[in-house]
Amino acid sequence: MPHIELGNDAPGIRGLMEYRPETGRVLSELAEVLLRDDNTLTRGERELIASYVSSLNQCRFCSASHAAFAAAQLPGGAETVAHACSDLDTAPISGKLKALLHVAAAVQRIGTAVTADHVEAAREAGATDVEIHDTVLIAAAFCMYNRYVDGLATYAPEDPEAYTRMADQIVTHGYLARLSGRR
Amino acid sequence: MPHIELGNDAPGIRGLMEYRPETGRVLSELAEVLLRDDNTLTRGERELIASYVSSLNQCRFCSASHAAFAAAQLPGGAETVAHACSDLDTAPISGKLKALLHVAAAVQRIGTAVTADHVEAAREAGATDVEIHDTVLIAAAFCMYNRYVDGLATYAPEDPEAYTRMADQIVTHGYLARLSGRR
Repeated sequence: MPHIELGNDAPGIRGLMEYRPETGRVLSELAEVLLRDDNTLTRGERELIASYVSSLNQCRFCSASHAAFAAAQLPGGAETVAHACSDLDTAPISGKLKALLHVAAAVQRIGTAVTADHVEAAREAGATDVEIHDTVLIAAAFCMYNRYVDGLATYAPEDPEAYTRMADQIVTHGYLARLSGRR
Repeated sequence: MPHIELGNDAPGIRGLMEYRPETGRVLSELAEVLLRDDNTLTRGERELIASYVSSLNQCRFCSASHAAFAAAQLPGGAETVAHACSDLDTAPISGKLKALLHVAAAVQRIGTAVTADHVEAAREAGATDVEIHDTVLIAAAFCMYNRYVDGLATYAPEDPEAYTRMADQIVTHGYLARLSGRR
């Protein structure tokens, strides 16, 4: 049960966004610009970073939902996402994405944990400065979203189908659709 | 030296916002809605939450800048801010604000560290549900800003005067002024 009375039964961050639309609007815009706007990292790659960080933070709602959003948009689907989150170095993803996920894991611990060696390894694997920047910011943002969702003890559905349905919505309409009433 | 070439010498998050204005705009809007928009928590109280979490995350730029923004807007000024950050329970601030800062400290560790007891103590000290919500989100947001600023190894000025000048700007013009060229 959430720590505060939300007045709705939407799960995870959705319930919080309905409760406080003033902040919900900006948080949705941040997700859209980070995870879906034009980028040399694909939407699937960026959702994998989100899911990976959320699983390190042990946030059930965010790791399950962004794993579903990554699976729907990444070659190899759910199997690749699960493999990357459980054993990154042997996962069937590019060396560049692995190096960026190592940067993301350092960010998850604390900002100063990101070393010049992490950044150099990402660059040697082909990452651009903007890709390194965006990886750090996506990882940092999920340290916010995860704490927000769990800090208020929101509800996370048990049924995997619930996350698949959310993935259909996000892949088709994006994070801003709920704001314009297209949910 | 920052991990990536920013093409500007602005300190802390300002350099990152100039480097990537697409994300800088949304991050500024989030700061404005959390720390300055209409709220039953004063701007000084909300900046103290930001500064407190940033000091727990040992983020030099964010703790120094938001301490200056809090000092400029909170009764007791810099002395009260320093007292609260070094020894919360004896600081000359309200019982409600102390209880909310205990919630923020739990969020800083990890979302699931916030217990029903933390929330109940805040309520008993007079906090509303919206104030509890906003405290959790401000604390979570600074777990993002701190990781972003330190994860890219941005520059933090040594001179305290630099933060006082930033405080003058923020208190007068807010977080969106730079976006409209009023810096």
